[in-house]
Amino acid sequence: MVSLEDIRAAETRIAGHIIRTPLVYSPTLSERTGARVYLKLEMLQKAGSFKVRGATNTILSRIDAVREHGVVAASAGNHAQGVAVAAHAAGVRATIVMPSWASIAKQEATRGYGAEVLLHGSSLEESIARAGELARGGMLFIHPYDDDEVIAGQGTIGTEILEDLPGTDLIIVPVGGGGLIAGIATAAKALRPGIRIVGVQAAACPSAPEAVSAGTPVRVSAQATIADGIRVAETGSRTFPVLRDLVDSIVLVSENNIADAMLLLLERKHIVAEGAGAAPLAALLGGSIAIPAGSTVVLVISGGNVDSAQLFRIVRQAMARQGRILRFSVMLNDCPGALAGLLSVIATQGGNIVHIDHTEGAGDVPVMMARVEIEVETRGREHADALLDAITNAGYPVTTGS
Amino acid sequence: MVSLEDIRAAETRIAGHIIRTPLVYSPTLSERTGARVYLKLEMLQKAGSFKVRGATNTILSRIDAVREHGVVAASAGNHAQGVAVAAHAAGVRATIVMPSWASIAKQEATRGYGAEVLLHGSSLEESIARAGELARGGMLFIHPYDDDEVIAGQGTIGTEILEDLPGTDLIIVPVGGGGLIAGIATAAKALRPGIRIVGVQAAACPSAPEAVSAGTPVRVSAQATIADGIRVAETGSRTFPVLRDLVDSIVLVSENNIADAMLLLLERKHIVAEGAGAAPLAALLGGSIAIPAGSTVVLVISGGNVDSAQLFRIVRQAMARQGRILRFSVMLNDCPGALAGLLSVIATQGGNIVHIDHTEGAGDVPVMMARVEIEVETRGREHADALLDAITNAGYPVTTGS
Repeated sequence: MVSLEDIRAAETRIAGHIIRTPLVYSPTLSERTGARVYLKLEMLQKAGSFKVRGATNTILSRIDAVREHGVVAASAGNHAQGVAVAAHAAGVRATIVMPSWASIAKQEATRGYGAEVLLHGSSLEESIARAGELARGGMLFIHPYDDDEVIAGQGTIGTEILEDLPGTDLIIVPVGGGGLIAGIATAAKALRPGIRIVGVQAAACPSAPEAVSAGTPVRVSAQATIADGIRVAETGSRTFPVLRDLVDSIVLVSENNIADAMLLLLERKHIVAEGAGAAPLAALLGGSIAIPAGSTVVLVISGGNVDSAQLFRIVRQAMARQGRILRFSVMLNDCPGALAGLLSVIATQGGNIVHIDHTEGAGDVPVMMARVEIEVETRGREHADALLDAITNAGYPVTTGS
Repeated sequence: MVSLEDIRAAETRIAGHIIRTPLVYSPTLSERTGARVYLKLEMLQKAGSFKVRGATNTILSRIDAVREHGVVAASAGNHAQGVAVAAHAAGVRATIVMPSWASIAKQEATRGYGAEVLLHGSSLEESIARAGELARGGMLFIHPYDDDEVIAGQGTIGTEILEDLPGTDLIIVPVGGGGLIAGIATAAKALRPGIRIVGVQAAACPSAPEAVSAGTPVRVSAQATIADGIRVAETGSRTFPVLRDLVDSIVLVSENNIADAMLLLLERKHIVAEGAGAAPLAALLGGSIAIPAGSTVVLVISGGNVDSAQLFRIVRQAMARQGRILRFSVMLNDCPGALAGLLSVIATQGGNIVHIDHTEGAGDVPVMMARVEIEVETRGREHADALLDAITNAGYPVTTGS
């Protein structure tokens, strides 16, 4: 098991190689929850996530051994970029094996950090097997979570939090394979035994709570999730004992809760969190974690690596679900002025039109009628309802999707 | 003129009322520029911008006087929210006069911070006049920039930067009315006389460089800009002497440069900067500021208050300009399989289709033909060009917009 001393040693080793990320107070979240809420901003870390901490600790711990053959890792996500950056900074060659479906953006980002990218296999398991072969040829294999030096490196987040905020009562941490929470829990419980550590995983892939209730790591079915960074089907064997012994509870969050948390962080704290990074806020807002009034809570925003186009889709859907983007269609008499009349009702209500589609002569549209599909930005559900009422009251038959 | 002592006094006064924002290293920007680039993250500040600093200093300086009648300000933007938050934290009533066109989101945010919002006038000047009347009734008027206590409050950003990074060689600061840069320049030049302070304004509203070259504040025509936070038509009379005497130069940036900087901060540093907040990066990347290799540069990211829908429009346009979103249309024979054939070419090239519009029978489309308009995400200009070549080579006539 990793000890506080291991984490202290990691802290000394990686200082100057990583960014000591800030812990920032959030007035908005504090007001919403009645607690004092702080965010540990690991999306400001090198390569956009905490992964560079564990990778740097592993490489620097064995720097003489890795100089000749370099390091190898298998990942389609943050671990790839974390290892690439850590190796580059240490002056060591890195080979990253990615499954063939890895996004070109992630491949290019990893190459951009100086690593060699090897596409191999149609699953991450096949990539890992290939990385294992390379490791037998002399390269050092860096596991994404199930390794004591990796765990110790991630644990430096825990020592930093308690140095900045010694009175922390609760730390909420995303859980995938368990490396991040194992490191943080080890550090925090050693420094402040009464502290609570709560893990958060996507309901789509609940390997951590299943492992804890089974008493051993078990393989679960991993559904797709926007929190792809914590989609790990089986908890690690090195991380499991820490999860079992030092983590107070693990809660699950839904996809909608994660998306809402991403939108809130974007709009109110002006930061981009990837799905895994927003999971702790999703759990906090979801109400399944007891938060004593006035207690000091830290959310670990573990990373911010989300493709812009995907970010927009997620945020757009969250806005639509909150009634802030409203889609509806109206049948109009196909005569001059009909559309103008409808639009003036929308304008009077303060709706901001973002898209209009005007169709006539389609199979389901009566002759002499036109169907207009409209997308409007509103201030929220109440405004959206008032807008629909006003259109209906003005004599236009409205159909809303779903 | 404001002195370093005034700023030190402000620092003591507002400590505990504001967030001491972090100064964070950016590996990406450092690599691009050959300098050591740090970001002062004021978008993490209360109410999402630096404005709460000056407002808090003003209110706390005169706390006995304002308890009875409260404070008043006129603003359609960050100053409104900054004053509202500062007053709320100090337990003082605030009235914010906004022009009637102020966005409902900004009105609601300001009310949400506990202020009374008064809609008055069709221009900000008329709102300011109304605020002046209220001030004659006893309320304390808080100017957005042209006031020594406001300048001293914003100057605490300068003392914080030099405390965190005493070796700073250059600070790049957005300029609107001049309050922020006057405070920072006063602090920084007193603490480190050799430091360079460079201001950045949108080319759409160049009041600061015009004032410096005219030797006095002059009124310029203020065009629309995505950096609406620094769209001030005339430099302040209190801020002008500092601008003239302590600021080394003021550079202008284009709308496209600002949008590109916003996109870069979003994707690589995972932060949301409003247009004004991204202006210093736009200037840095624009090449008009001499950056000695290895020098230490701080960009003041002044705020992050940008409407989500507007942020997406800005980012989408920047992506389109960089070739990462490609729109084109193709004329197809209107027969089964024609569209499928085209889409398979796009798929083979790794283009990700985000929108398709298929039209037949329109006036400009020949009978038996259909026009297909397609929007595709690409990895950038080269990929976009390769994709268009592949479609053309497969025999499909392509038209690209503009």
